[in-house]
Amino acid sequence: VITPEHPWVWLNGRIVPAAEATVSVFDRSFLYGDGLFETIRIYAGKPFAWADHWQRLEAGARFLSQSLPCSAEALAGAASELIARNAVQEGLLRITLSRGVGRRGYSPRGADHPVLVLTTHPAMANDPASPIRWRLMTSRFRVATGDALSVFKTANKLTHVMARAEAEAAGADEALLLNSDGHVTEAASANVFWLAGDVLRTPPLPAGVLAGVTRARVVDLAPAVGLRCEEVSVGPADLLAGDGVFLTLSSLEIVPVVSLDGVGLRDSPWPRRLHEAYRRAVALSTG
Amino acid sequence: VITPEHPWVWLNGRIVPAAEATVSVFDRSFLYGDGLFETIRIYAGKPFAWADHWQRLEAGARFLSQSLPCSAEALAGAASELIARNAVQEGLLRITLSRGVGRRGYSPRGADHPVLVLTTHPAMANDPASPIRWRLMTSRFRVATGDALSVFKTANKLTHVMARAEAEAAGADEALLLNSDGHVTEAASANVFWLAGDVLRTPPLPAGVLAGVTRARVVDLAPAVGLRCEEVSVGPADLLAGDGVFLTLSSLEIVPVVSLDGVGLRDSPWPRRLHEAYRRAVALSTG
Repeated sequence: VITPEHPWVWLNGRIVPAAEATVSVFDRSFLYGDGLFETIRIYAGKPFAWADHWQRLEAGARFLSQSLPCSAEALAGAASELIARNAVQEGLLRITLSRGVGRRGYSPRGADHPVLVLTTHPAMANDPASPIRWRLMTSRFRVATGDALSVFKTANKLTHVMARAEAEAAGADEALLLNSDGHVTEAASANVFWLAGDVLRTPPLPAGVLAGVTRARVVDLAPAVGLRCEEVSVGPADLLAGDGVFLTLSSLEIVPVVSLDGVGLRDSPWPRRLHEAYRRAVALSTG
Repeated sequence: VITPEHPWVWLNGRIVPAAEATVSVFDRSFLYGDGLFETIRIYAGKPFAWADHWQRLEAGARFLSQSLPCSAEALAGAASELIARNAVQEGLLRITLSRGVGRRGYSPRGADHPVLVLTTHPAMANDPASPIRWRLMTSRFRVATGDALSVFKTANKLTHVMARAEAEAAGADEALLLNSDGHVTEAASANVFWLAGDVLRTPPLPAGVLAGVTRARVVDLAPAVGLRCEEVSVGPADLLAGDGVFLTLSSLEIVPVVSLDGVGLRDSPWPRRLHEAYRRAVALSTG
């Protein structure tokens, strides 16, 4: 049995021991994945980019017509309390929002007692000077092009779970997901970028892409390090032909990709430059 | 707060009061929809088409590499026990299988303590002579054409939840889902059939269609009532132009569709004939 690494959980306003943090078997996120979540990096005991994560969570809740049972400020207070209780300096904070218990069936009518959970987890250190590097594998699982749900971090992640498991079974670290048109969208747990000279490319959100918080930061940082950024829909061959591929995710920041489907990718100085710029922004924000 | 209609729940081998039937907030079906389920009609205190539902659940578990912690016989015994405890004559049985608690992140590695839940629920009566009829609305939410997960009843049903909510908000009863190619796949909670003279049509599974237990029964029954059955991928216009549309689902058996996107559909004698044939099969099986 896998036991949680941190002893305390915040559940609907109360901090409880992890073993007592439970939800009903009639909860709609358990039954249908009818929920949302955020994974936030904690640096020096503080959640990073809180406003961006809150904004995505709130936009998702509005889109799903779920109610968020507290304000950004109240939830930030709860997060601080939990981080202190679990004594987290470097780690991760997960916010989980479920529509809660409803009537049997897909209709969400009448399910108006949401469940909100905060958990903390250890984070892996990732040094820009000698970063974690991943082997990527194109998955046979595809997302629907133009799926309006893709931009939100919903609790419907079975495609991503299966893609990751498929990649790991094949000896890779992470999966590359294509959409139903065969275009690159994202990795299972990260957004994807690739380089063509001094042009930085990433797929547009409507291709079926999560609106990643780190993705948006990297797009913002690109001009400052000398990169021009473009959103384009391409097949995986364009990643193989380019000048380097990397992934962005809150937990590990920037992860260079060493190979795609077993084919070695060009090494690039840009992921490191962007990673260092990202770290400077983190340092500024955490004082 | 919505409370379950039946007092007892079967949870991993024990029958417990509904209020005490809980799972961890670290459960992967709660976090990612990493699970499967079945909804089975109970007639005269007995689950109908048990073998078909078990077979789909087992195939799904194999596909997801989840372990099913008991045999078909043991689970059938547990179902009988719960049905008796809740004193259900006419109703529904839900089987829920989750991968259980795992490590943080999409990888399912190490999550090998599945959670299995049985619940019972009331069923609505549906008389073939004056059946429930539904207004259908085409959803803007689409499934990925060829998605390998669609045939299984997974806990990733947010697209179906959203489609149903969208239909209800527009005054319809149920949503019609298209795939990313714009072809008809299924209704949110049911499979879809339409008629062209004495030809019965339904979309093929690879279009992104749940392998419905009642769908398969209706395909089997069609020749006996004088219908030839075909699997075809079409746009919603073909349903409007046809000789009648109906839905199949375990809970309500056969539901004729009265309108699609507000346009009245032709009335047909075939749904009633198929429904009566289905009821004869139920009567034979339940003695």
